[in-house]
Amino acid sequence: MNAEQLVKTVTAATGFMRAAGTEVVQAEPGHTVLRLAKKPELLQFNGYFHGGAVAGLADHAAGAAATTALPAGKIAVTVDLHVNYLAPANGAAIVAHAKVASVGSTICVVTVEVFNEAADAQAARCAIATATLRVVDAPKLAG
Amino acid sequence: MNAEQLVKTVTAATGFMRAAGTEVVQAEPGHTVLRLAKKPELLQFNGYFHGGAVAGLADHAAGAAATTALPAGKIAVTVDLHVNYLAPANGAAIVAHAKVASVGSTICVVTVEVFNEAADAQAARCAIATATLRVVDAPKLAG
Amino acid sequence: MNAEQLVKTVTAATGFMRAAGTEVVQAEPGHTVLRLAKKPELLQFNGYFHGGAVAGLADHAAGAAATTALPAGKIAVTVDLHVNYLAPANGAAIVAHAKVASVGSTICVVTVEVFNEAADAQAARCAIATATLRVVDAPKLAG
Amino acid sequence: MNAEQLVKTVTAATGFMRAAGTEVVQAEPGHTVLRLAKKPELLQFNGYFHGGAVAGLADHAAGAAATTALPAGKIAVTVDLHVNYLAPANGAAIVAHAKVASVGSTICVVTVEVFNEAADAQAARCAIATATLRVVDAPKLAG
Repeated sequence: MNAEQLVKTVTAATGFMRAAGTEVVQAEPGHTVLRLAKKPELLQFNGYFHGGAVAGLADHAAGAAATTALPAGKIAVTVDLHVNYLAPANGAAIVAHAKVASVGSTICVVTVEVFNEAADAQAARCAIATATLRVVDAPKLAG
Repeated sequence: MNAEQLVKTVTAATGFMRAAGTEVVQAEPGHTVLRLAKKPELLQFNGYFHGGAVAGLADHAAGAAATTALPAGKIAVTVDLHVNYLAPANGAAIVAHAKVASVGSTICVVTVEVFNEAADAQAARCAIATATLRVVDAPKLAG
Repeated sequence: MNAEQLVKTVTAATGFMRAAGTEVVQAEPGHTVLRLAKKPELLQFNGYFHGGAVAGLADHAAGAAATTALPAGKIAVTVDLHVNYLAPANGAAIVAHAKVASVGSTICVVTVEVFNEAADAQAARCAIATATLRVVDAPKLAG
Repeated sequence: MNAEQLVKTVTAATGFMRAAGTEVVQAEPGHTVLRLAKKPELLQFNGYFHGGAVAGLADHAAGAAATTALPAGKIAVTVDLHVNYLAPANGAAIVAHAKVASVGSTICVVTVEVFNEAADAQAARCAIATATLRVVDAPKLAG
């Protein structure tokens, strides 16, 4: 499996991300781009994306970015996640770009930027996040 | 509205929390207890609660704990959230206990503990979180 | 070496903590109390303890709390540190209480509370912190 | 005072940073570069820079970056600081680059990268940090 197949498989096997409607826009070793389109189940009472939706997308994108940077048979699971909410997540979709900052045999660190999708090129960054992940043996995913 | 009515109203008005099936177990000024029962839309591929579900519950519990500690007409919105995942969130439900650490006129800090619900008294703590929130004027919630 | 001897030895061998004048008040497996008395080299321009002094004390207390909870021959090194500054660190001394939240074979998590030392029993908490640490083989300290 | 004068004045007035030997390499609105040369008072027992020295430098660089982006008469004070230690801070000096991520009327967020200074262009990043800061009225600094 290449990076994109791996991330698509894991995303489809993850109830939380599948229910959210997560789209894998891009995945290469150490770098992923994931997208969530707006829908009521992801929102705050004010109509913006909820902090938990932003955090969940960032977490999943970080795990995917780290896992694709690891040798086959290893995955990265989140140890801690820090999210800074910079601006209302009020786009028609939000898009997370995750990038590995360090990869070790036991620990990976990934930084994530989350953008409000915009019609023009000026997509505004609505959150940044840092995830620390631990490297573990990959479980078998049901076919 | 007292604290419990306020938290129930906000939770019901929040698509993300309502879709997740959030139950307000307890709410008093500066302290809230919220609960999520297990269901597929909240899980990792391994059957545990997803980090985004844990983070979302912690975030909402923190916002509710801070808001109930503020004067009427003010609410607290999350500026940043830090979650440490201590153990698999593998309970039949997870329960977040949020408690205000400091309340100011512009900033609140809330600590959260998340437990796996267990049949006996030995509920295991699966995550801890700290949220920094900003105090803003409350918007009107649609009746 | 027992926990207290270990923490005193490591603290004395650490230039940053020794220069700061760190006092080991208490050390038992998984729990440490460290103290810094006020002096100009630790302060902000406003006369309060600098955020770096608070963070350094919290970091060292966390490392000591985790290391004393590990088997002999292992130490814990900080992977990430999150500090919330709750109130001015304006005591005549600051005192950090660190307590292990989880201990694993590769990762430990420690929570820290930092207090302004007060003449009476009402010491105010000026910061809280969470540290994630990695377990590694202990280096030899020069005798 | 321009940005560089402001940062130099605040750094000189701050006992912790002055004792550490902080050098202001660059300062412009929203962006600062600060440097610490190695000396025993800043080190771990293993001879690397201590986590508290790294955190203190990152904190000060973040505060300076935010303050220079604010209107005259306002300063930014750290509410919380999150540091990820990516690699040993084993340079002959460490250099922090701080950059404002968002500036508001009450809250600023700043990201920081800390590098081990190297003889060649390949300086390695040893830490990244995110600071959340609160905007307050500037106190008068003693001339």
